[in-house]
Amino acid sequence: MKVTILGNNSALPAFGRHPTAQVVAVASGLLLIDCGEGTQVQLQRYGLKWRSLNHIYISHLHGDHYFGLPGLINSMSLLGRTSPLYLYGPAFLITILQSILDAADSELSYPLHFHALQEGEELLTDNEYFSVRSFPVIHRIACHGFVVKSKTRGRKLLPDKCVEYEIPAAYYEKLKQGSDYERKDGVLVKNEWVTTEGPAPKTYAYCADTLFTETIVPAIYGADTIYHECTYLEKDGDKAAARYHSTAIQAAKIAVLANVKQLLLGHFSSKYRDLEPFKEEATTIFPNVQIAEEGKAFDV
Amino acid sequence: MKVTILGNNSALPAFGRHPTAQVVAVASGLLLIDCGEGTQVQLQRYGLKWRSLNHIYISHLHGDHYFGLPGLINSMSLLGRTSPLYLYGPAFLITILQSILDAADSELSYPLHFHALQEGEELLTDNEYFSVRSFPVIHRIACHGFVVKSKTRGRKLLPDKCVEYEIPAAYYEKLKQGSDYERKDGVLVKNEWVTTEGPAPKTYAYCADTLFTETIVPAIYGADTIYHECTYLEKDGDKAAARYHSTAIQAAKIAVLANVKQLLLGHFSSKYRDLEPFKEEATTIFPNVQIAEEGKAFDV
Repeated sequence: MKVTILGNNSALPAFGRHPTAQVVAVASGLLLIDCGEGTQVQLQRYGLKWRSLNHIYISHLHGDHYFGLPGLINSMSLLGRTSPLYLYGPAFLITILQSILDAADSELSYPLHFHALQEGEELLTDNEYFSVRSFPVIHRIACHGFVVKSKTRGRKLLPDKCVEYEIPAAYYEKLKQGSDYERKDGVLVKNEWVTTEGPAPKTYAYCADTLFTETIVPAIYGADTIYHECTYLEKDGDKAAARYHSTAIQAAKIAVLANVKQLLLGHFSSKYRDLEPFKEEATTIFPNVQIAEEGKAFDV
Repeated sequence: MKVTILGNNSALPAFGRHPTAQVVAVASGLLLIDCGEGTQVQLQRYGLKWRSLNHIYISHLHGDHYFGLPGLINSMSLLGRTSPLYLYGPAFLITILQSILDAADSELSYPLHFHALQEGEELLTDNEYFSVRSFPVIHRIACHGFVVKSKTRGRKLLPDKCVEYEIPAAYYEKLKQGSDYERKDGVLVKNEWVTTEGPAPKTYAYCADTLFTETIVPAIYGADTIYHECTYLEKDGDKAAARYHSTAIQAAKIAVLANVKQLLLGHFSSKYRDLEPFKEEATTIFPNVQIAEEGKAFDV
């Protein structure tokens, strides 16, 4: 699983930084988490294929997290998309989108399946490739984070070995599930001769816009990578608290409490040009910190 | 009067081109005509000061003409704007914006005065510096063009001469209006000794998204510069007609019929990478044609 950052800034675009949007690549395609203004152009810029994008998760209805959505869903339609798009967000989001479509006298070329986020935790998506759960955070308006888990897809085939042992392709799915294969000549081909361990399932937690709160720890506990906002540096901690945001040190505290392996920092206030101090502050508390740089893809 | 192009593409962003937005600079500040996604960033990129922007005109409710507006009005508020903003657009625009503000539990830091465009022609703004009239065009949904006229601000003072003839500053306004000045020593200072002719009033017509129609000619007749869309080249004239758009040659025909001095071409379909053929086709009909290149400022 990889996370590509499309926007890492808070509400006011500044220093070439964009509002929040992230793409999570799973085995079956791409998931988009939040969709600030300009997301469709950022997707193009970083070579992320819209056709592989079937799921969009919107954390809350502050504009810097969804003002790019009307343009994106519209452009998908102009490009003639036919496959369904699954959209998850606050209930009122669909009312806004429907108003916008009505005003343009437009119908989308594809089915848009909308699911309104409920108050608490909820399993939103669950298929053979990944699952996504929402969890509530504390912000000025209703806001949710998301936990994306990739699923183990069984053992990984060694194609050369499968050919060498003359295993028919029809049996490959069973090999992935761990079975041995008995050939017609009576030779038993052991599973471990023709497969290796498959990729381990991974967990990515996106903690959205939030006040520092330990209440989110159980939902994200043990994740491989979390993204936590840090709109402010510690010296501006009073602003963070007043505006329902966090500091870099608070983000790092959550990473420690949740026992995660890697912390991505983002949602930087437009008052800061230099982002390095965010990393410096966070690493005083937690070792593996990365600035969520735009265009950069992080292994979860 | 100058027009700076912020976006010249039709709905799908392509080849680095943005959806429609233009800034008209008049003596009192900036007017924004249409506001496609990314306009706030484009304003920053081309050094256009938001504080001087007090009037916004939205032609119609297709997303490529206003999806940047929620972000822009929001950002103005985050920057602590207090002066009023005058917004003109289709009636339903304010309903959409109000929904978006309500969803974010936000109030703007400044008064937003909205005026709903009426069906026919209408005088929208009229002050000592400029006037703006709307006029209907023919598109798939209700759509208006806008005619911006700068006003003559009287004669232009020659500061050195005013000092030389010892004219008190309190009398300058009367000089601009053409009066002579009688000094205390009885010398009559002729107006033409201390002033020259002021800048001529200019007229810019923005013809929005429209099917080719001669009905717009009276509204824009004699303008110094018009912007006319040309989504398609002549070979795709059937697409233009089907989608209520125009070709470059049709835009040029309007320029001829309206007896204007300069034609700006824009709203190019994302199917065309090279824009030069639009100019080539239009100049077969009308001589003074410019491609509305992004970032370029055109004298009206």
